[in-house]
Amino acid sequence: MAPTSSSLASFAVRQAVDEATCAASARAILDTLAVIAAGHREDPVTRVASALRYANGGDAMPSLGGEGAYRQEDAALVYGTASHALDYDDVCMLAICHPSAPVVAALLAAAPWDDLTGPALCEAHAIGTEVMIRIGQAVGFRHYELGFHSTATMGVFGATAAVARLRGLDTETTATALAIAASLSSGLRLNFGTMVKPLHVGIAAANALRAVAWASADVEASHGDLFAAGGVLEAFSGGTQRTWPESLSLGAPFAIARPGFEQKRYPCCYMLHKIIALGIEASTAGLRLGDVARLRIEMPRGGTRPLIYPRPVSGREAMFSAPYTLLVALNEGNVGFASFTDDAVARQHIRSRFEDVTVEEVGDDLRTAAQVGEAPVCLELQLKDGSVRRFERHAAPGSPGDPLSSTELRAKWVDCLARARAVAETGGTDQAAAALYDEGLDRLRAGNLAPWLNAVWNQFGCASDTLHNGVLG
Amino acid sequence: MAPTSSSLASFAVRQAVDEATCAASARAILDTLAVIAAGHREDPVTRVASALRYANGGDAMPSLGGEGAYRQEDAALVYGTASHALDYDDVCMLAICHPSAPVVAALLAAAPWDDLTGPALCEAHAIGTEVMIRIGQAVGFRHYELGFHSTATMGVFGATAAVARLRGLDTETTATALAIAASLSSGLRLNFGTMVKPLHVGIAAANALRAVAWASADVEASHGDLFAAGGVLEAFSGGTQRTWPESLSLGAPFAIARPGFEQKRYPCCYMLHKIIALGIEASTAGLRLGDVARLRIEMPRGGTRPLIYPRPVSGREAMFSAPYTLLVALNEGNVGFASFTDDAVARQHIRSRFEDVTVEEVGDDLRTAAQVGEAPVCLELQLKDGSVRRFERHAAPGSPGDPLSSTELRAKWVDCLARARAVAETGGTDQAAAALYDEGLDRLRAGNLAPWLNAVWNQFGCASDTLHNGVLG
Repeated sequence: MAPTSSSLASFAVRQAVDEATCAASARAILDTLAVIAAGHREDPVTRVASALRYANGGDAMPSLGGEGAYRQEDAALVYGTASHALDYDDVCMLAICHPSAPVVAALLAAAPWDDLTGPALCEAHAIGTEVMIRIGQAVGFRHYELGFHSTATMGVFGATAAVARLRGLDTETTATALAIAASLSSGLRLNFGTMVKPLHVGIAAANALRAVAWASADVEASHGDLFAAGGVLEAFSGGTQRTWPESLSLGAPFAIARPGFEQKRYPCCYMLHKIIALGIEASTAGLRLGDVARLRIEMPRGGTRPLIYPRPVSGREAMFSAPYTLLVALNEGNVGFASFTDDAVARQHIRSRFEDVTVEEVGDDLRTAAQVGEAPVCLELQLKDGSVRRFERHAAPGSPGDPLSSTELRAKWVDCLARARAVAETGGTDQAAAALYDEGLDRLRAGNLAPWLNAVWNQFGCASDTLHNGVLG
Repeated sequence: MAPTSSSLASFAVRQAVDEATCAASARAILDTLAVIAAGHREDPVTRVASALRYANGGDAMPSLGGEGAYRQEDAALVYGTASHALDYDDVCMLAICHPSAPVVAALLAAAPWDDLTGPALCEAHAIGTEVMIRIGQAVGFRHYELGFHSTATMGVFGATAAVARLRGLDTETTATALAIAASLSSGLRLNFGTMVKPLHVGIAAANALRAVAWASADVEASHGDLFAAGGVLEAFSGGTQRTWPESLSLGAPFAIARPGFEQKRYPCCYMLHKIIALGIEASTAGLRLGDVARLRIEMPRGGTRPLIYPRPVSGREAMFSAPYTLLVALNEGNVGFASFTDDAVARQHIRSRFEDVTVEEVGDDLRTAAQVGEAPVCLELQLKDGSVRRFERHAAPGSPGDPLSSTELRAKWVDCLARARAVAETGGTDQAAAALYDEGLDRLRAGNLAPWLNAVWNQFGCASDTLHNGVLG
């Protein structure tokens, strides 16, 4: 049944979250913490942070990097920007968004860590991502087509619901916070390809904290139904979707439980994931780059749109390059952070083969981004001996059809924390990071998070001895 | 010619502003300062402020009310919310917005006052309001129809351009700030009638300071044209306006110079202004409420939409009541703050006549809000002696067709500062306030503003001895 503002608020503060959903949230939270760590010294984060002031007081939250403490909304801004700085955070094609990034960023900044328990964080994450995704589904694909960035515009609703849940707000205050969030919803795709894309996530997370703070300070907002005609859906769909679709409900099941989110396996554009998997498959099948004369990739219509660097010259460009990632996958049987340094991209034995790769879109136009995501990608290798080998991939690595295993999630975590340590030039080992992963899985299912979160932050440069009860002294 | 992002930025930082435009800006700034003063203790302001932290440091800006100092963006939030708290700030029907409120709020918070000169403030105001209004015109009326609140969504662009001008940013940084502003543009009409409506103005002003701060910290944003297809206009018009209308230019002339803004003469809904003028006209013609049997108002189609309280029971409801304001205007020959107290609304000799007033919409549907604003309003009085008197009003009081005179602007200022002193329970006299108005007119045309701004703030409760060089010590 279509929710009203008030039933949405009720869902946010009261809905029970089942065990399987909480378990999925625990894995998504760990995945998001990993990419926050990996992204915490990227330019968008350091530049945004340089415009902030440090704060003090009982609710100040640790910065990333250990230099000081921030007001909660500023901490959310920085955590959120870091979470999306490498575009390595999870995805949900139901609403074409990155669901965990804004929600986790807001939650991490929303409460002093001493009071934070794993189950409370998981429940709030499940609630927040569900609210975000279902509003995104309700507003429809037209929203994205018009130029809005759903992760930002819908993220503020999800992050607000999540923070309301974590703080234990009542239904009325939560409804007010969601109504205020509606007036803070922003973010345009025209800023894609710039530092403002990750900043969008930070803004959404920070705005969620502002919405909750104002609602808690008795700022009065609309008591009407935000999702009726004349409301959120009409404005943000350009008038094509005026009310909530009757068929769409919340939490039955949670989207994170079914179909599940898409977690990136490789630190680059999601549309490269099948290509990389095909390259690795060919390598595993014993094919070597030296044996191959020509490589041809077939993608669905629209699939190549983000792959804008056929001849990359930097690590950042290579993250959106089909020829580069395919050649590396075939040549090395793997793709990771090390593949996306400027030095790696400069390697002559890879660059010299760019001209041998062709990428083509085939087939009919597809209606939705989800359909583009589901359509197969093919790799055809013409060998020097004249033979042809063909590989096909339906499910993207990390998608619900081929989800990351526990081992792969753990490896991604270790890899991300290693990158974080490297850029922060701190100590710590992969073994310590791996142990933190296992501890995190336990604590997120049952336990207090403070000592563990402090230890994670410590891994990437926030000296834990400046933390006192989860708050910087 | 249609501007690009880059030529818009160039306009913001380089465009010369002629004398007449600066003079109009000086009057608009004084009008806006007056309504900030009058609104500074309203509930939306005190509640938003209660969720803020005080700040210190060289760029901390005085709060309203004198309790402390704020970070610049927080000061802009509070000044902006105050400016719109009574809905008494100026209007421009070209883009259905309140142009001065977000721009002045951002400017007041954007620079330490010791460095602030009158001409710099006037030029920045003219630039900011012009940018806001022209983007609003470019996006078209569909924007407002879809549910967006132009004062907020377009306000952030204007406030950003104004702050860039005042701070002397270069063209490239200004273009970046405007691109970031595009991703901060938000505000939905669904929150009209609540405290979030004035808060929208504060949010837009604060977001302008954030956009400028991030651009100045080298956060990179879109270098493309924000107003080409796929950009701001397409997203915010629901796809009906994809590019900038060729016929629409900036600053030729400035909208504030021609046709000019609409400045409210009465502290209530703008759609009541003609009704009040008609009541005063009847009173001036010697008619008395006791002589009148029935009163009938004819409004254009759509004109009664905001007049949602035919039987008001509080001062705030009375601000949107046609019967109440008409009866007061006829009975007393004037309408002012004193008319909108709860006690005034409770007066039996006014209340007992509500049933004798009818309000009707006549004529055909009108296309734009500007046309509704221009259509005549009629008052028909049926006297107890059986005769009928009819009055008609074309130009609204305060509109370009019947602008506030210098004397009326000065009287509004004095009235607003008296209200500010009353709620802040401070000293000061109407004579002192009037002198500050005359001094302000001079200083805005030539001179340093710091001592004068401090004296104005002092009038409504910010002790000037805590100010040091325009900054709280």
